[in-house]
Amino acid sequence: MKQYPVTELQNLFNNELSKLKTDLQHAAPRGLYLPVDYSLEMGGKRVRPLLLLLSFNLFSDKIENALPAALAIEVFHNFTLLHDDIMDKADVRRNQPTVHKQFSENNAILSGDAMAFLAYKYLLSAEMANQAEVLQLFTQTAIEVCEGQQLDMEFENRTDVTETDYIEMIRLKTAVLLACSLKAGALIANTGAKIASELYDFGMNLGLAFQLQDDLLDSFGEQETFGKMIGGDIVANKKTFLLIKALEHADDSLKTELLGWVQKPMFNQTEKINAVLDIYNRLNIKELTENKIDSYFNVCSAIFEKLEIETSKKECLRNISNKMMNRIS
Amino acid sequence: MKQYPVTELQNLFNNELSKLKTDLQHAAPRGLYLPVDYSLEMGGKRVRPLLLLLSFNLFSDKIENALPAALAIEVFHNFTLLHDDIMDKADVRRNQPTVHKQFSENNAILSGDAMAFLAYKYLLSAEMANQAEVLQLFTQTAIEVCEGQQLDMEFENRTDVTETDYIEMIRLKTAVLLACSLKAGALIANTGAKIASELYDFGMNLGLAFQLQDDLLDSFGEQETFGKMIGGDIVANKKTFLLIKALEHADDSLKTELLGWVQKPMFNQTEKINAVLDIYNRLNIKELTENKIDSYFNVCSAIFEKLEIETSKKECLRNISNKMMNRIS
Repeated sequence: MKQYPVTELQNLFNNELSKLKTDLQHAAPRGLYLPVDYSLEMGGKRVRPLLLLLSFNLFSDKIENALPAALAIEVFHNFTLLHDDIMDKADVRRNQPTVHKQFSENNAILSGDAMAFLAYKYLLSAEMANQAEVLQLFTQTAIEVCEGQQLDMEFENRTDVTETDYIEMIRLKTAVLLACSLKAGALIANTGAKIASELYDFGMNLGLAFQLQDDLLDSFGEQETFGKMIGGDIVANKKTFLLIKALEHADDSLKTELLGWVQKPMFNQTEKINAVLDIYNRLNIKELTENKIDSYFNVCSAIFEKLEIETSKKECLRNISNKMMNRIS
Repeated sequence: MKQYPVTELQNLFNNELSKLKTDLQHAAPRGLYLPVDYSLEMGGKRVRPLLLLLSFNLFSDKIENALPAALAIEVFHNFTLLHDDIMDKADVRRNQPTVHKQFSENNAILSGDAMAFLAYKYLLSAEMANQAEVLQLFTQTAIEVCEGQQLDMEFENRTDVTETDYIEMIRLKTAVLLACSLKAGALIANTGAKIASELYDFGMNLGLAFQLQDDLLDSFGEQETFGKMIGGDIVANKKTFLLIKALEHADDSLKTELLGWVQKPMFNQTEKINAVLDIYNRLNIKELTENKIDSYFNVCSAIFEKLEIETSKKECLRNISNKMMNRIS
């Protein structure tokens, strides 16, 4: 059985995506499909389809059987970005105008809807092992992602979000889709339910670690490598792990100071970022977050190492998850 | 094989819907599921699930096998209403505030998304004959409904919409879902592909006639029985069959008069409605539209009468389609 290097899987996926984009360029009405094409053209790391293909390739080398599902996951992920960006009033993504800015909110709603159904179209387009189970997993995951986004929106207006609340939110909003990608790969390769379920747990813990890493980089990353403005979450008062832990650990006077910044209606951005970072530093929030990330990543690694798969086959997936966690952007 | 009376099928469906609503009342986060419940609580004629069940009952009396799909179609239809009402800035539906007015636009977007996935959840929840085919039909239909809504939005800013353009728009936006409901019922009853496809064509023609009837009632219905304001389409400059035919048949002077009303930025509503109705009357638009409705309904009836099904079994579905066409509201 052939083990594909990551770059080859990426090429195979990109070819599949190109075919889709060619189809979309001929689809009518143009007004519906242009924003779909624009959104898929914006790029991104394509982490989810890669995880699906890597997981599949642990058990099978007939990659063509897994490509439609990989495409479905990526199209679904981009659908969530279209709608989330409207809800979050985010005007820029990957240094480009978001779909609702480039086109209109109506276009972002409707083309997003079409993408959700296109994802099912790809899932249904190919014969695959365990198709019904893959569809159920995908559907359950999609519902959970909606639940996660709802929680994220509700947290905006709350200052009493606990660590447990937060972890549940990122589990739903981010981690389940990574878990779903890995499990779907295993199911499509027709491997046993036990390994499929272990890969799901692996993906869940990887996803939690990954999202916490994202929170950390937003406050403590390097501007040049991170690509986004450092401190964006602080400016927007996002209830990240960092802010929640700071509110939890601060004494009364420091808590008042921190909430003062959170609730201030007018402020100088740099001043606010520096003041909040200073509070984070005084409370060792960076180390606290790193420890939390490590704890999830350790669970993730332990699950992975115990998987009953030949050691030689594990390398690709181990490399990619290490890379995801050591990422600086 | 038992032939269910319409009221019994409606009761069975309402029971299934009640079970779903009970589930939703216990689902978290509440903020996501309250708008779903609200939207399903608003009522409506439940035409699509009824058509699905009637079609199913032509071939089978194990109604429980078709109920999940009937629920899926209704939940899907309500999902489209949530998103369409945002896009169309419609504040009232069935005399109640629309979801985005009652809650918020973000809630209507996200709860709508959840409903699209819930529809798949119900489709996947039961073992049914031809499940893969039903899923493909449903997915293709959902994509077409998005295409129809896109065309409808694009028509708002055009005055050159032809009859052909318009029929294609209502085919996609309205008719394919009725067609899908009827075909899905047949597929789930595991009847032959030929009859399933004939029922699809029957539903398509019924859907076209039904939408044209809706256009007609909006201008020529009775206020009390129609339930909505007569002339709403005229006020909103909707590119209905009536307006398109009027623009097509008017001589230069009448066309200028009609376009004058369409393009007038400020006007008295009653004055505009009466003026446009007067133009419609001068051009015999009512009769023209009635003839078009009859032509689709005749095709629909011809397909139906030719269906290779015992005559006695056909009565229910014939009654309901007659009722749909003779409706005054």
